[in-house]
Amino acid sequence: MIFQNTFKLSTSGHRDMHDITEDVNKILQKSNLKKGIVNIFNIGSTGVIGTIEFEPGLKRDLPEMLDKLLPPSRNYGHEEMWHDGNGHSHLQASTLGPSINIPFTEGNFQLGTWQQIFHLECDIKPRNRKIIVTVNGE
Amino acid sequence: MIFQNTFKLSTSGHRDMHDITEDVNKILQKSNLKKGIVNIFNIGSTGVIGTIEFEPGLKRDLPEMLDKLLPPSRNYGHEEMWHDGNGHSHLQASTLGPSINIPFTEGNFQLGTWQQIFHLECDIKPRNRKIIVTVNGE
Amino acid sequence: MIFQNTFKLSTSGHRDMHDITEDVNKILQKSNLKKGIVNIFNIGSTGVIGTIEFEPGLKRDLPEMLDKLLPPSRNYGHEEMWHDGNGHSHLQASTLGPSINIPFTEGNFQLGTWQQIFHLECDIKPRNRKIIVTVNGE
Repeated sequence: MIFQNTFKLSTSGHRDMHDITEDVNKILQKSNLKKGIVNIFNIGSTGVIGTIEFEPGLKRDLPEMLDKLLPPSRNYGHEEMWHDGNGHSHLQASTLGPSINIPFTEGNFQLGTWQQIFHLECDIKPRNRKIIVTVNGE
Repeated sequence: MIFQNTFKLSTSGHRDMHDITEDVNKILQKSNLKKGIVNIFNIGSTGVIGTIEFEPGLKRDLPEMLDKLLPPSRNYGHEEMWHDGNGHSHLQASTLGPSINIPFTEGNFQLGTWQQIFHLECDIKPRNRKIIVTVNGE
Repeated sequence: MIFQNTFKLSTSGHRDMHDITEDVNKILQKSNLKKGIVNIFNIGSTGVIGTIEFEPGLKRDLPEMLDKLLPPSRNYGHEEMWHDGNGHSHLQASTLGPSINIPFTEGNFQLGTWQQIFHLECDIKPRNRKIIVTVNGE
């Protein structure tokens, strides 16, 4: 069985990171499914979804590391298309990816104690994000 | 229900990038399924599948960035095994990953307007790729 | 149909890499399912699962490359939380990701000849890992 639902997320722009575990869990509970896989997907090409130990240190480290490896710059080819200065946002998001899959058993996520589901905004301005959650289970 | 199909892709070698959204969409439409998840998987360890805004600038930026972070070189351990100069191809492909999962609703992908599905060739010579598409839905 | 099972993996700590293709395949065979997707997920935020050509060279190259891009250091924000020196472990694992999805057909994985499923330990001490395998198919 497939159960699908969405939720909204307002971000403040580049480097803004949210713990979305509870938003996703609410949809999982609503599905009433007991065993399977949940896919969480950010619609759009400059947002990331993944897992991390969600604490203030790593919340700073992850976007900082991305800006070091894939730095903000006006020298990307992408700049020639839109002149909007977010070439690095696209590269960061395509590298980490827009989605994650999490298994669940007896109606609960199989995550580690210090493993949360995060959303990372890579775009340079505030965005209203739509996250789509697909529960595939029985 | 599971619907599975493949398509072929000829690449010209390292850094060659294709928009495969329409190839995947044809298989989704053929499945007649309305709601669920599509998995797109590159068979082989030197090809990448992901999402990006597919425009000429980023089509240049993404492989360029990968070659900067994980540069072509004869100094990789992999070289000792095959002496074929594609150690960086493996590292780039394992870092970005061979597959992506995309949700669909009412028979249509839930992608952003500027979000396409891409294939990136990381190997150093032209390859004939087989891409397997698995539609899991109802 | 969903078939779910787990297996254990003892790792020796940072940079330890295992070929887990056979462990996962045993669970796929036990499921008796013929067509679909297998999700393999590392529980915890400092382990990675992906695909690679599993040979001694790349087994050295991949962790070495990660340590170059995301180096061990006491200067991460994460250090302030736990003072346990594994900030880079978290960043490496969140970048590569804790899971992969592999399609199967007629009961067999659709992997390339030189494409195996690997687990990479990013944490700095030996860990007993629990890997959860979810077979979704028919």
